[in-house]
Amino acid sequence: MATGRLTEDQWIRRWLARWPKPHNLVLGAGDDCAILAPANANSQVVLKTDAIVQDVHFVISDTPHLIGAKAVNRVLSDFAAMGAAPQTLMVSVGIPKKLHPAFVEKCYRGMAKAAAKHQVTLAGGETTRSKELWFSVSGIGKVAKGRAVLRSTAKAGDLIFVTGTLGGSLTSKKHLNFTPRLPEGQWLANNKLATAMMDLSDGLGKDLPRLATASKLHFAISAAQIPATPGCDKSQAVNDGEDFELLFTVSPKNLKTLTAKWPFKTKLTPIGIMVSGKQSDTDNIEFLGFDHLQR
Amino acid sequence: MATGRLTEDQWIRRWLARWPKPHNLVLGAGDDCAILAPANANSQVVLKTDAIVQDVHFVISDTPHLIGAKAVNRVLSDFAAMGAAPQTLMVSVGIPKKLHPAFVEKCYRGMAKAAAKHQVTLAGGETTRSKELWFSVSGIGKVAKGRAVLRSTAKAGDLIFVTGTLGGSLTSKKHLNFTPRLPEGQWLANNKLATAMMDLSDGLGKDLPRLATASKLHFAISAAQIPATPGCDKSQAVNDGEDFELLFTVSPKNLKTLTAKWPFKTKLTPIGIMVSGKQSDTDNIEFLGFDHLQR
Repeated sequence: MATGRLTEDQWIRRWLARWPKPHNLVLGAGDDCAILAPANANSQVVLKTDAIVQDVHFVISDTPHLIGAKAVNRVLSDFAAMGAAPQTLMVSVGIPKKLHPAFVEKCYRGMAKAAAKHQVTLAGGETTRSKELWFSVSGIGKVAKGRAVLRSTAKAGDLIFVTGTLGGSLTSKKHLNFTPRLPEGQWLANNKLATAMMDLSDGLGKDLPRLATASKLHFAISAAQIPATPGCDKSQAVNDGEDFELLFTVSPKNLKTLTAKWPFKTKLTPIGIMVSGKQSDTDNIEFLGFDHLQR
Repeated sequence: MATGRLTEDQWIRRWLARWPKPHNLVLGAGDDCAILAPANANSQVVLKTDAIVQDVHFVISDTPHLIGAKAVNRVLSDFAAMGAAPQTLMVSVGIPKKLHPAFVEKCYRGMAKAAAKHQVTLAGGETTRSKELWFSVSGIGKVAKGRAVLRSTAKAGDLIFVTGTLGGSLTSKKHLNFTPRLPEGQWLANNKLATAMMDLSDGLGKDLPRLATASKLHFAISAAQIPATPGCDKSQAVNDGEDFELLFTVSPKNLKTLTAKWPFKTKLTPIGIMVSGKQSDTDNIEFLGFDHLQR
């Protein structure tokens, strides 16, 4: 059996089983970020790693500074999804021998700009030869103790929200040029408004089932409510992936506060409700999602 | 000009110039690890990222659990070189479609075993499709405030030491099967015996000049003193690379304490002295080292 037959989730479950139990972590693998035991009484260390690979997450004809921005912003989006503040990054890069150095430099400029936009620095990196261009980015940051918003803490009856619009990120190039929802995620965490949260990297069709499974719940969504990007149908909105918007749940008692106090221009849409029933209701839209190992 | 014409050091200098100045770091890129602003009054967060790539750092006919061990131990070796304690790791892996999943699982078991040996946990990871197998490993740990041993703090007159024996790591497979010198590095740091320290990843012939340059000094070594691995000549000991031994400097006033109190079975050899002269004396051995971008 080739690894290609395992889904990403299956693969992650399989290799996590091989690792020592993370006794020194508040939160191990399986959420958007991990959390290291409290550094002091008031804050916790938040950790995330991610990678982008040529011909999987970008092509070499893409604008190099957007490739760099994507490598950084994917990690920042995971910090947003915890309500955490990224502080510094480490970057490993695999560089093909034939690639012009100016191209990789432009990628780095894109990374620098994306990081600086959120007052994030670079702590170090590693360069190596490789057959294709890839970037592996690790982020270290912080969150006030107990304020990180996990995937596993939604309650039955909580309303499901998404930011922005969904679908078409490959054709629109939004997948290279998105804005990580850091202020939105931090605001939701600091105001204790999100009961569960994650970022939409693999598409609502894959990520909402993940959030529901983590919370031991099901969901019911309204197809009519899904904020599809103009030009996309509902199926594309659900299954295209790489939206990098926030998916989060809110207790009904906080609905008024959320909608009245939301201080951002970012679109905010209620799309459904978490339920404790026996199955999820996708309102006749097929939920497929996106799997990096199935390509 | 292809990137292949730039050395690794040139490349790192070039791309570091593109990044925002790391205002929130105690120590940025350029040493074995980076250090994040104190988490509390007594400790600092230590950060390192590294990557290994098929056909650069290992071949697919190598034992998979040793490939995994190497990916982890390279990072732990950098913590050793700061005198720091690694706490947790994040691993990104690029998996070729045709590779049997049992192979990658064995790599993970090797990583798990290597990490557990030093009470290090896994905080998360990312899997992606790629053309060749690679692992990018980031480590997060801690060091008592002010106790990290840098490369840049050697003084003229300090004696130069190395642990273990040098050379032949490719043919002996030591490059896959080495022991990171964590207890030795931490002991040297905790007892304030090393004035400067780094790990020998690219060979004494490249790494000692780096330590000297960082400390704004030169060095004089005795060829006769270099502890070559049996079967290796002095040139191989200096230039083969991937020894993953510690290179450190010691003030002459602490020489007696070091040699009298060294509590390890690990071989300890004085090989030379740091000097403030105009050039280094390599005792007629050519210093070449190893460059991952020049291969």
